[in-house]
Amino acid sequence: MTITRTLSELAQLVGGEVVGDGNVEISGVAPIEHAGPGEITFLTHPKYRSFLANCKASAVILSGKAGAASVPSSRPNYLYVAQPTLALARILGQFTPPQSYDGRVSPLATVHESARLGLNVTVYPQAYIGSEAVVGEGCILYPGVVVGDRAVLGEHCVLHPQVTIGERCRIGNRVILHAGVVIGSDGFGFTEDGAERVKIPQVGVVEIEDDVEIGANSTVDRATLGKTVIGRGTKIDNLVHIAHNVVIGEQCLIIAQAGIAGSTKLGSRVILAGQVGVLNHLEIGEGAMIGPQSGVPHSVAPYSVLSSGLPATPHKEWLRVLMVLPRLPELLNKLRTLERNVSAKARTKKKGAKTHA
Amino acid sequence: MTITRTLSELAQLVGGEVVGDGNVEISGVAPIEHAGPGEITFLTHPKYRSFLANCKASAVILSGKAGAASVPSSRPNYLYVAQPTLALARILGQFTPPQSYDGRVSPLATVHESARLGLNVTVYPQAYIGSEAVVGEGCILYPGVVVGDRAVLGEHCVLHPQVTIGERCRIGNRVILHAGVVIGSDGFGFTEDGAERVKIPQVGVVEIEDDVEIGANSTVDRATLGKTVIGRGTKIDNLVHIAHNVVIGEQCLIIAQAGIAGSTKLGSRVILAGQVGVLNHLEIGEGAMIGPQSGVPHSVAPYSVLSSGLPATPHKEWLRVLMVLPRLPELLNKLRTLERNVSAKARTKKKGAKTHA
Amino acid sequence: MTITRTLSELAQLVGGEVVGDGNVEISGVAPIEHAGPGEITFLTHPKYRSFLANCKASAVILSGKAGAASVPSSRPNYLYVAQPTLALARILGQFTPPQSYDGRVSPLATVHESARLGLNVTVYPQAYIGSEAVVGEGCILYPGVVVGDRAVLGEHCVLHPQVTIGERCRIGNRVILHAGVVIGSDGFGFTEDGAERVKIPQVGVVEIEDDVEIGANSTVDRATLGKTVIGRGTKIDNLVHIAHNVVIGEQCLIIAQAGIAGSTKLGSRVILAGQVGVLNHLEIGEGAMIGPQSGVPHSVAPYSVLSSGLPATPHKEWLRVLMVLPRLPELLNKLRTLERNVSAKARTKKKGAKTHA
Repeated sequence: MTITRTLSELAQLVGGEVVGDGNVEISGVAPIEHAGPGEITFLTHPKYRSFLANCKASAVILSGKAGAASVPSSRPNYLYVAQPTLALARILGQFTPPQSYDGRVSPLATVHESARLGLNVTVYPQAYIGSEAVVGEGCILYPGVVVGDRAVLGEHCVLHPQVTIGERCRIGNRVILHAGVVIGSDGFGFTEDGAERVKIPQVGVVEIEDDVEIGANSTVDRATLGKTVIGRGTKIDNLVHIAHNVVIGEQCLIIAQAGIAGSTKLGSRVILAGQVGVLNHLEIGEGAMIGPQSGVPHSVAPYSVLSSGLPATPHKEWLRVLMVLPRLPELLNKLRTLERNVSAKARTKKKGAKTHA
Repeated sequence: MTITRTLSELAQLVGGEVVGDGNVEISGVAPIEHAGPGEITFLTHPKYRSFLANCKASAVILSGKAGAASVPSSRPNYLYVAQPTLALARILGQFTPPQSYDGRVSPLATVHESARLGLNVTVYPQAYIGSEAVVGEGCILYPGVVVGDRAVLGEHCVLHPQVTIGERCRIGNRVILHAGVVIGSDGFGFTEDGAERVKIPQVGVVEIEDDVEIGANSTVDRATLGKTVIGRGTKIDNLVHIAHNVVIGEQCLIIAQAGIAGSTKLGSRVILAGQVGVLNHLEIGEGAMIGPQSGVPHSVAPYSVLSSGLPATPHKEWLRVLMVLPRLPELLNKLRTLERNVSAKARTKKKGAKTHA
Repeated sequence: MTITRTLSELAQLVGGEVVGDGNVEISGVAPIEHAGPGEITFLTHPKYRSFLANCKASAVILSGKAGAASVPSSRPNYLYVAQPTLALARILGQFTPPQSYDGRVSPLATVHESARLGLNVTVYPQAYIGSEAVVGEGCILYPGVVVGDRAVLGEHCVLHPQVTIGERCRIGNRVILHAGVVIGSDGFGFTEDGAERVKIPQVGVVEIEDDVEIGANSTVDRATLGKTVIGRGTKIDNLVHIAHNVVIGEQCLIIAQAGIAGSTKLGSRVILAGQVGVLNHLEIGEGAMIGPQSGVPHSVAPYSVLSSGLPATPHKEWLRVLMVLPRLPELLNKLRTLERNVSAKARTKKKGAKTHA
């Protein structure tokens, strides 16, 4: 089944302006280096600008206003919009019909008799729903999903294969959990009794608010007491670790392989880049941005932009830097001594000069 | 069902002293900012001390002796103990009755006819136990658990959903494996035959000793030959990577997202903080502690405390540091030249001074 | 069942030369510190050379030619080869008979009626194959594997427990995916509409070429449009993150916990060490090698050898380094000022000297 829209219809959908033929028919989206006739493409990263000259697409989404058109040739047709990526997202949605689900519980799934399922819930074979669990209307549970006892899912959630929801954890509405995500594993809490490590029971839960999306194989630990919270609209990438009692605000972005240690709180719209590590019991203020691979050992003021990542350097040069690095304190001391010596001499000189004079 | 203990009973359990009313009834534990009447709370992190003034809890666990009481108001009751976190762990245990399992094998699980199961083993639906596998008394296998052929589990292990135990791997007693843990995946062993990469068969196993706990989605590779070992009582957090032939001693703590490369040996009670990376074929001595995000490229003496993590810095300032960093060797050379020049001049000066004299 | 080969037979297999008794019978391989009579061992890492003196093995694989034998004692027998690790891989293969699979689809697996399976496919209980999926001849699908709708697997692939292949993704021949691998999760693509984050539909696929192996719990996201590609013969370790639209060349090695951000391209035979992070939209040239924990913020020329990892340092010393690090720009400025002062004085001095003369 092919879905077709005219360029004008797409312009109307995204609030954009057409330069060229608004009646051209579009039936798909493709990246600029591959797009052909009948397809619309886009230019969201300047790196790909050079492909524009030979572009065979029927239309190109560009940033700006039609009046300010800076593209010389009018061979393809242009769709000017204020936010090309947002336009792309919406246009892609037009050509990607929502996947259809049968809204039924497979007889090969295991659903505890005391679980409560809303209308139109799709449960694939080999999924498991525990006792007194609640699954809201329109949820989709792929094969291998495990919903623990007394866990609660809101409406229209999608749980991809092998997702585990621990007992008593609560998931909001329209939450998307990708394959292998674990919600509600025990927090890493141990103490000592002499030489032995003793487990601190982890009796809290995880609460995930509406419109959260979490990437493949990420893990969110349950609280020791109380709850670990992922705020509304926050998006988490793959292989991210969220420790017990962490509280993440709304609309945050946590990029792949980042980790947040226990009890740390993130305000709204915080961005952690890939492989960032944040220590425990900290507060990361609203809107703060932390660059890739940075370590965060202290609380961070709102809207701070911090980083401590190191760019890869020719290995031999880097080894030479590493030779000097541990000597930095010594180097600073030498410099201070030199400064004193030179200025002392300058004074002596001056005095001497005076004496001479 | 509510469990109730008097404060005196709890004091006796943990070997503590009561200041206030020992007869007050406690039926739960809560964090200090949320605790109310009938609950006991604790003060294990100084950050939360300010909550003490308005605390509504019936009792507070504090560190120290009753005689040395430093808390002015006696509105709540106090339980003084030598180790508050240990007391908390035990008191939490009182109010967290062990989850009940039916000790039966679900007819919806798959258990090979040649597998041997001990008494009172709980196997949930959709779990799989391979041929000649052994599962000890009282083990609990959640949905989606896979126990490979000829793998052996000791007694009272808990394998959370989607845990995979590879064939022939051996797990001790009271081992807890959280959701998605993989034990016994192939080690990363390849060699070359001309331009082609050739797989080195990974025919060893993993051996996990008693009382080990491993966090969600962590992976432990089987040895090329022989065995990868996780020592007794060691606790591993989420998303940790343990490579082939690694040998970890007893009572170690390996925090989230750390990784240990092939054949490295850790002594007992080693602590690796989050996102640490340890290279292959090293020896990390007993009791060594490695700070967050540090890289360990060489063996480490016992009881060393090492780190190389970088704290996130205002991004613009960090960029300026990064401009200078590669020039450190040059900077050191300049400094040396200067030192020589200045001291040469000083000598000339002195000589000159003498001449002048 | 014991497999036995004479040392001469093994020598013929790997193209090596025997020093000693070629008729000695070998029935296994063991590491040098454990090997006993009837076993062959190897010396691939110089660290273990000291074990050679007391080695009880019937034969040792060594690097070099028999004529150049540098090992004094001839107590064990020696097998000299050009590439000991390659010889080890092949000899191990001799003693590790391929695991036998029954080539049947378990009635406890779920296979959609429209899926097409080749000859001799083994599907374990609790595996799931979606509609119109294709599984090539000789594939092995362990328990808990999920093959999405219209996904295509080539021949002789091994999918370990809990592997997820997303819908429409394509896997080549002889691909090995270890437990918990996720292929085809959605890329991390979001844009904003005012304060709300909006998901960019991820409608592309993942394509994995022949002879790729991917380690436990690694994740490969599907492209936004088009495809994410893992090139022929590339080997990926555990817990690695490959983002949407990444293209990886042939025969690369990506070590544990490395991550590659969106749309980045790797040439052939690139090596990323453990915990490396590569930013998005970059090109990493053929044969480039990046050291452990390094960050890659810019494109890399072919055959570059780069690193930026920091070796763990005694914690107190490191704290002193961290005190100076942010002052590096200031330090450089001070040094420059000093240089100017000293050379200015030198000039003054000279002038002065001339004047005096």
